[in-house]
Amino acid sequence: MSCKVVLAQTISASFREELRDTIKSRNIRPKLVGFLANDDPAAAKYAEWTAKTCAESGVEFELRTCSRNDLEDKIVEANQDASVHGIMVYYPVFGDRQDQYLQNVVDVGKDVEGLHHKYVYNMYHNIRFLDQAQTKKCIIPCTPLGVVKVMEYVGVYNGILPYGNRLHGRIVTIINRSEIVGRPLAALLANDGAKVYSVDINGIQEFHRGVGLQLKKHEVSETTLKVEDVLPLSDVVITGVPTPSYKVPSNLLRDGVVCINFSTFKNFDGDEIKKKAAIYVPAVGKVTVAMLERNLVRLYDYQSQDRAGSA
Amino acid sequence: MSCKVVLAQTISASFREELRDTIKSRNIRPKLVGFLANDDPAAAKYAEWTAKTCAESGVEFELRTCSRNDLEDKIVEANQDASVHGIMVYYPVFGDRQDQYLQNVVDVGKDVEGLHHKYVYNMYHNIRFLDQAQTKKCIIPCTPLGVVKVMEYVGVYNGILPYGNRLHGRIVTIINRSEIVGRPLAALLANDGAKVYSVDINGIQEFHRGVGLQLKKHEVSETTLKVEDVLPLSDVVITGVPTPSYKVPSNLLRDGVVCINFSTFKNFDGDEIKKKAAIYVPAVGKVTVAMLERNLVRLYDYQSQDRAGSA
Repeated sequence: MSCKVVLAQTISASFREELRDTIKSRNIRPKLVGFLANDDPAAAKYAEWTAKTCAESGVEFELRTCSRNDLEDKIVEANQDASVHGIMVYYPVFGDRQDQYLQNVVDVGKDVEGLHHKYVYNMYHNIRFLDQAQTKKCIIPCTPLGVVKVMEYVGVYNGILPYGNRLHGRIVTIINRSEIVGRPLAALLANDGAKVYSVDINGIQEFHRGVGLQLKKHEVSETTLKVEDVLPLSDVVITGVPTPSYKVPSNLLRDGVVCINFSTFKNFDGDEIKKKAAIYVPAVGKVTVAMLERNLVRLYDYQSQDRAGSA
Repeated sequence: MSCKVVLAQTISASFREELRDTIKSRNIRPKLVGFLANDDPAAAKYAEWTAKTCAESGVEFELRTCSRNDLEDKIVEANQDASVHGIMVYYPVFGDRQDQYLQNVVDVGKDVEGLHHKYVYNMYHNIRFLDQAQTKKCIIPCTPLGVVKVMEYVGVYNGILPYGNRLHGRIVTIINRSEIVGRPLAALLANDGAKVYSVDINGIQEFHRGVGLQLKKHEVSETTLKVEDVLPLSDVVITGVPTPSYKVPSNLLRDGVVCINFSTFKNFDGDEIKKKAAIYVPAVGKVTVAMLERNLVRLYDYQSQDRAGSA
């Protein structure tokens, strides 16, 4: 079988090595605080894994548990503590709009997850820098950013095209339109030049920058297309369906497709997919955590610059 | 406009530099003999251009003119002359099957154009080496090889896939099915994993290695498809229509397509194509000549190895 299976561990290795080298050679110790305010065993597990990964890279990770009603005060405290460089929260906490409120309580300068409205707004509007001088790149949410890095690694981005247009000509289907991953990912890929079909149970939306990338940022239109229309057209199919029973129908996929799964469940049938895909990436979690650390180091540097500037 | 126009000169530069360095550092002087046995002013012009390019690289080029009836004897003479490392003929000479006969008169060890039956057979059968030990790569005809190098340069080949499968997932339309360029090119690209629609006035053939590249070499099937069916599906459109009036209908092309023209006439409408294509390569001639010289150096080395082996 000609399918190349690429593991997240392989893709994350170079990022993690670079992180370790940066942290060691500069003799810095960025500190990330994670807030756990729910009883979700999956969140606790993820926190454990984050702690282990951070320790390997030289990042200090501190898990702070509290009740959900104390969480806002605890975040404010961490915002004001200069020894804390990055903050993350294990969502869901309240599981409603209050979670979105909490995302904006985290200081924009410490938001390693890129969930603050400023970052979300900039991402949807294809504004890539925080400052006019373009020295500070915006923070991109870790999982969508991880998927972008996966796509760069497996050769979907074309390096000969100018930065910002490197997906021109690519047709991508994303099965998941959550606010956390699917919708921001669709926007990121369309802003980079792809035509994206964003699939959820309510239907399929198309994200694109128009013929010849005539638009500066993507626009979204509703379609009447079905999964069986868009899968055969797609160079790349990305899945994030949180259901153990869901499988992408392999017979609809184009021969030589690139398949990437970010769900914790295997959304592709492993045997079938290898008969048809050129490239299959079964999981992205390790790349996501590498992006979390990368965002932290970036914020650490912005904070140092700000202190130097105000000194 | 977001279209990136890539010139053959840019693509050939690194090959030509490498050739110059190789020839200079090894202090060798490969000799290419070109036979001109027709009155075609285009052939004379091409010979002139070849001479100039060879001089710049340190290749000795000698143009020998003769009547077409003397040509066979002249080729045999050059075959036997150890000071001649490569031979090429400006076709058409007789313009019929006798030209194909002449292609097989050229010694296989001096055939810089890769037109000898042995090379043609190996190319169609995806046999990439002349020897069992895989030390001597087969000679590929210069224009098809030039187009492959163009496609590598512009990022159509995916380097993360294994050698020989790097076009898996790509759909390519080639408008030209001549024995000199279009058909061998379709075979080369299909052998590298692409699905190729080969278009000529008699219809469209599909060249491919099957779903999941299950075949070791490509197979060809007739289709009832029309140009308007295959163009909207194609990632890459390659043209070689020798008619000044012919233009690919831009409205049928997929947004973000890669367009490559090897005809001496512009087969794409320059203004229209730039509004739609991600990458446009208007000509490949300079890459073709670089491949001619590259093939010559390769044959020079094979001859040296053979002499060393028999000494």
